[in-house]
Amino acid sequence: MNLSHRITGLTEGGSDGWDIFRKARRLRAEGIPVVDLTIGEHDKRTDPSILRAMYDAALGGHTGYASVPGTVDLRDAIAQRVAHRTGTATSRDNVIVTPGGQAALLAAHMAITDPGDRALYIDPYYATYPGTIRAAGGVAVPVPARADQGFQPDNSDILAACPARSLLINSPNNPTGVVYTQETLNQIARVVQEQDLWLISDEVYDTMIWDGEHLSPRSLPNMAERTLVVGSLSKSHAMTGSRLGWLVAPEPVIEHLSNLATHTNYGIPGFIQDAGLFALEQGNELEDMVAAPFQRRHGIVSAMFAANGVPVVPSWASMYLMVDIRQTGLSGERFAERLLDERRIAVMPGESFGAAAAGHLRIALTVDDDALATAIASLADFHTMLKKEAA
Amino acid sequence: MNLSHRITGLTEGGSDGWDIFRKARRLRAEGIPVVDLTIGEHDKRTDPSILRAMYDAALGGHTGYASVPGTVDLRDAIAQRVAHRTGTATSRDNVIVTPGGQAALLAAHMAITDPGDRALYIDPYYATYPGTIRAAGGVAVPVPARADQGFQPDNSDILAACPARSLLINSPNNPTGVVYTQETLNQIARVVQEQDLWLISDEVYDTMIWDGEHLSPRSLPNMAERTLVVGSLSKSHAMTGSRLGWLVAPEPVIEHLSNLATHTNYGIPGFIQDAGLFALEQGNELEDMVAAPFQRRHGIVSAMFAANGVPVVPSWASMYLMVDIRQTGLSGERFAERLLDERRIAVMPGESFGAAAAGHLRIALTVDDDALATAIASLADFHTMLKKEAA
Repeated sequence: MNLSHRITGLTEGGSDGWDIFRKARRLRAEGIPVVDLTIGEHDKRTDPSILRAMYDAALGGHTGYASVPGTVDLRDAIAQRVAHRTGTATSRDNVIVTPGGQAALLAAHMAITDPGDRALYIDPYYATYPGTIRAAGGVAVPVPARADQGFQPDNSDILAACPARSLLINSPNNPTGVVYTQETLNQIARVVQEQDLWLISDEVYDTMIWDGEHLSPRSLPNMAERTLVVGSLSKSHAMTGSRLGWLVAPEPVIEHLSNLATHTNYGIPGFIQDAGLFALEQGNELEDMVAAPFQRRHGIVSAMFAANGVPVVPSWASMYLMVDIRQTGLSGERFAERLLDERRIAVMPGESFGAAAAGHLRIALTVDDDALATAIASLADFHTMLKKEAA
Repeated sequence: MNLSHRITGLTEGGSDGWDIFRKARRLRAEGIPVVDLTIGEHDKRTDPSILRAMYDAALGGHTGYASVPGTVDLRDAIAQRVAHRTGTATSRDNVIVTPGGQAALLAAHMAITDPGDRALYIDPYYATYPGTIRAAGGVAVPVPARADQGFQPDNSDILAACPARSLLINSPNNPTGVVYTQETLNQIARVVQEQDLWLISDEVYDTMIWDGEHLSPRSLPNMAERTLVVGSLSKSHAMTGSRLGWLVAPEPVIEHLSNLATHTNYGIPGFIQDAGLFALEQGNELEDMVAAPFQRRHGIVSAMFAANGVPVVPSWASMYLMVDIRQTGLSGERFAERLLDERRIAVMPGESFGAAAAGHLRIALTVDDDALATAIASLADFHTMLKKEAA
């Protein structure tokens, strides 16, 4: 029995770059202690007050089919939040609630991609991007953001990949921790307008910026009409497992996506939406509490690497920090393999996030400060050793 | 800015048949009392013990990313349930957990449908079927099940719609309440094997059968390898708003769909999966408690219609009962409109579920017995009046 080409070709064959992650899990399951700095999951769980709000909503009877595009109250709260943070007029009719940011990414591409359309995404990229484009029937085309340009995309690279239907960007960026500059976003806005592309802007790390303000490209002139913004409570409110995100887009897009949502998930649990509303109503205080450990660890780790002469990608956001290990002459994959085997520290090789991040490691700042500092000291020592081997 | 053809063509233009439903909602919002017998939502909410299990799981820390194809425990429980109820070998590797039965319907079609493939579905049908096929890029082709054959599909109609990639069936059936006979399922098994089709079997009403046993076509000879079964806790456990369903399929399908799920929802909340596991562990007792009101009301309403000479579709399952109003000379839509305007009773016109159900009404047995009996008496009286008008 044949399966669809879509599903058999969703991800490329061979290694998907997550071997290290799986090996680390296996070792831990066998009782071997491994410091896991692989995935972007908070070490502190969802705040109990949010869980209580969820339970109260469920007990209160919000257990039936919920409004498919999202409850009016939650859509209003998201619209207000976006308007407040970006200065761009946003109403509930610009918002659809989705089961997590990943579903919003897929919905965005489903809304604008016809089979065979070229859909661009910036490399390095979050692991699901190309598969998401392919799930929507598109042709996934990477556009490199170069290490020697601080991983800021360049218009010449975007232009070289055109014509296309859309461009997917992600700032603050996973895996690099880089925030796109105003100048980068201005030039992206220019090229997407000139080339008549949709811009899909994944902004799920917008509350985790350690220097400066978040800038959404939707707020640039003439951009709201062609920009779809992916948001989520996963990172900002440590609600990864609640699967609660959204897409902000022009009204006609939301209208069609509401119709599509009837055919994908038939809505999101009402009690989870009520929990999300409660979380948003707590304002900055809760978000700052969730973000604080990552800012603190970013400082600790940056200082340690600087003191030990380990080059890092200059960054000021997200839950990650990227190390440049090219002086060792090893690939990110080989370095990460040896680091796991010889030091029992698991990090993600840059190659897992695309060719542009080759020779780098992504470190998730997701263990407590002491364990992190111990691991980073070991990693820095390992780097020095390998650099000497290479010399 | 252009949207994809997929999304703009998802549902056909004009009335979607849900005008009555929306009008009833509007009237109620205005404070006008309407007896709402439109949608398949239990009048009794999710059992508090299930909500408590969810809260306990969340407090216990199951709030991070959950295993994408579903937790091992829940997949095991679903596999055991299916094996027990159908006598067909089923392991966790045959099961993927989905955010509701609707997501399983879409996943099934995503797995087997290439753009432009013809995907058949039996008419009358649950409202989302054709749009779900289109969302997966397929061409949705209805196959009539005829009123004069008790809405049992006939092989000649299926054959006439071939060649195709798949056939979607639904027994116990929404909207008709009909259960496919052993002979119907045998002949369907024959035609899908001869025509080399995938069979997608939506069995979400499998605990709501008032006479006889549920028969899953996956249990017929040589059918497990080509059958994908949609299941859900929505109807069986009054968990509509929890969005928890599954697909049972051959292992390679599940493997690919796990990969796809990483790109659609990135898993389902762990605390909801734990609640679902708890619900399944309660066994038949809870399911029978949820089903009992519908069986009881099916009896009450059938007897009332029989006593008043209102013809109904012979049925013995589900939350619905279908009335044949063709003796009035009105369409289902017109009858339903007048019933709402003149008697303040909202039911779904058969036409909302496809051409094959024209001249019928679907009555959801979803209000308490007394209110239901009063409404049915009024409906029967109205039917008698309209029949006289037509004579």
